[in-house]
Amino acid sequence: MIRTSFTRTLNSRISAARRGVLHTAHGDLQTPFFMPIATKAAVKTLSSFDIERLGSPILLSNTYHLYLRPGLDVFRAHHGLHHFMSWKGAILTDSGGYQVFSLAKTRKISEEGVMFSSHIDGSKHLLTPELSMEVQQAIGSDIAMVLDECTPSGSDATYLDTSLARTVRWAERSKVAFENGKILSNNNGAQLFGIVQGGVEVERRLEHAQALMDIGFDGYAIGGLSVGESFDDACEVVTALDGKLPRDFPRYFMGGAQPHEIVEYVRRGVDMMDCVLPTRNARHGLLYRFTHGDITKSDFYETVHVTNERFRLDMTPLVANQNDAVTSELSRYSLSYIRHLFSIDEILAYRLMTFANLHFYLELMKRIREAIDKGSL
Amino acid sequence: MIRTSFTRTLNSRISAARRGVLHTAHGDLQTPFFMPIATKAAVKTLSSFDIERLGSPILLSNTYHLYLRPGLDVFRAHHGLHHFMSWKGAILTDSGGYQVFSLAKTRKISEEGVMFSSHIDGSKHLLTPELSMEVQQAIGSDIAMVLDECTPSGSDATYLDTSLARTVRWAERSKVAFENGKILSNNNGAQLFGIVQGGVEVERRLEHAQALMDIGFDGYAIGGLSVGESFDDACEVVTALDGKLPRDFPRYFMGGAQPHEIVEYVRRGVDMMDCVLPTRNARHGLLYRFTHGDITKSDFYETVHVTNERFRLDMTPLVANQNDAVTSELSRYSLSYIRHLFSIDEILAYRLMTFANLHFYLELMKRIREAIDKGSL
Repeated sequence: MIRTSFTRTLNSRISAARRGVLHTAHGDLQTPFFMPIATKAAVKTLSSFDIERLGSPILLSNTYHLYLRPGLDVFRAHHGLHHFMSWKGAILTDSGGYQVFSLAKTRKISEEGVMFSSHIDGSKHLLTPELSMEVQQAIGSDIAMVLDECTPSGSDATYLDTSLARTVRWAERSKVAFENGKILSNNNGAQLFGIVQGGVEVERRLEHAQALMDIGFDGYAIGGLSVGESFDDACEVVTALDGKLPRDFPRYFMGGAQPHEIVEYVRRGVDMMDCVLPTRNARHGLLYRFTHGDITKSDFYETVHVTNERFRLDMTPLVANQNDAVTSELSRYSLSYIRHLFSIDEILAYRLMTFANLHFYLELMKRIREAIDKGSL
Repeated sequence: MIRTSFTRTLNSRISAARRGVLHTAHGDLQTPFFMPIATKAAVKTLSSFDIERLGSPILLSNTYHLYLRPGLDVFRAHHGLHHFMSWKGAILTDSGGYQVFSLAKTRKISEEGVMFSSHIDGSKHLLTPELSMEVQQAIGSDIAMVLDECTPSGSDATYLDTSLARTVRWAERSKVAFENGKILSNNNGAQLFGIVQGGVEVERRLEHAQALMDIGFDGYAIGGLSVGESFDDACEVVTALDGKLPRDFPRYFMGGAQPHEIVEYVRRGVDMMDCVLPTRNARHGLLYRFTHGDITKSDFYETVHVTNERFRLDMTPLVANQNDAVTSELSRYSLSYIRHLFSIDEILAYRLMTFANLHFYLELMKRIREAIDKGSL
């Protein structure tokens, strides 16, 4: 299964940052990149057409949610999620494991998999590595993830060892199932990533990474961070893994990161990120905006609560006009207007803010890539 | 104040239907036309850019809501609603009267005006004809409406007479205040319409129309219908007024109408309509769609509840692709996908449905105008 789906094109001379291209059946993606989250087959408030306009070449969607609703029969009828949501770009899906552990009403883990009750109707399901692969392949994911357990922080050493060893066995089973499974006809070159767990202990992380590398995957994700640990601890883990993971395979930092944290992870060799913050914060009125053009300095952005009274008469545009289609549209609306839309609970507020924050994150990634190209990051 | 803001261009030979152009500072509008409702400075779920893409040349907004929130100071700072919501087309505003009578917590009517308590914070306000004109002029309305009382259906004859006489006096005061008020610099040619009341009694309607015509307005609205009377009664009133109202002034049927009712009102000489049905029904999953191309036959459309189980695997596009930007976008999404979005309460469902239903109503008006031009309506 080891394919050359990733081409590394440039290494920074001043950090571990890298530029590259990840090849998929739905486009060649310039790394480092950020993935907007389409949890349930939609980035909340936005259509696939909107994401195209924003210029994101890839979306992340959640296997657990899609498996429960609309369900596999719908994806089989549509021949996958791309057709279902009319999305032409690439799709990465998680394995469903994280949501089983965080959302399901009850769950019981065994060697075979995780028995859980749906948070929607209480129905019982057994999520195994084999089922996760079947679902992700029916969805037509370009990048599938192995089923893993995101070990709860604060687990004792014994449990951590047990969990990590099982996650390795699940990764092996995931790979076998993925290779024997049915890839949709429009999705040749679908990839499977392993997920490195191990909490914030560097030794455990390196051991787990080695075990996954021995199995061999198309890329390696760093899981189990952004779950309450300190930013310094997360950086230590990422730095250590940069020295361990094979350099010609993509590395994916899973989960939430603020803009300045994204820059730091890129500096430590990360190629891919996702984060619910720009979209979730948008719906709560928190706007990200650049303060200056140099993203290598940590004060390159600020956040403002547009619901604040001080924006009542503020004529500043939601997004500065950069003379492209998206910013010239978003620049038409003042913060005064956006604040009003929030005050009347108008859905349009959530949408325009989501547009603005995703534009910010995608623009940030563009500036990151340019900074690596120019040698300044 | 009587200006030639309306040019009648064609009369049907087989009905009272007319074609014309209503001239405003924000565009010349082909009649008959339909106005999407931007109650609180937004058509729910849509931006001004979206309405532009849909091709509507005019919006209707609600004085009562805008007066309470965001308030006049905001409109003064923005020099009007056009700038506030970034809308380049024309705007018609109601007088606020209808909402005072239907939404306010308490209200007390007197010769001077209506004292009411805000439905938001209970604050007391006195809405007079003079205040209504001041607010509509601060909003920068292209077409303002006189303050009137929409007499409750079932009022006794005595109350009806009292109310109608007062509405005439308020119309006179509205006209004086409008002529003495300050029109925004970008809004020369702003117009004031009178509103014919009188319930479903034709004699009272004709008398009231004559009283308003004696005062003289830029156009005449038919108010107090779509409030529970039968469709036949409404048609009788409209037909009678067609024979009464001056032919070279626009006639505006206020309030809700289903698509086939719109065709009938147009047949009876109506030029302008508004209706909350396409947008409100959209958010409840009711889709309007054409069944055939001939809008002069009453079975030209159907409605379907896209939330229904039978659409689970339905690949029919939300809107048929007519090779323009809007329908080619909307045709990307299947009813199966829209149904899924409703099942997860995703805001995008409301938006795409609103887009589809407004497209239907605007397309209906286009076909109505074409049918009059061709002599078939």
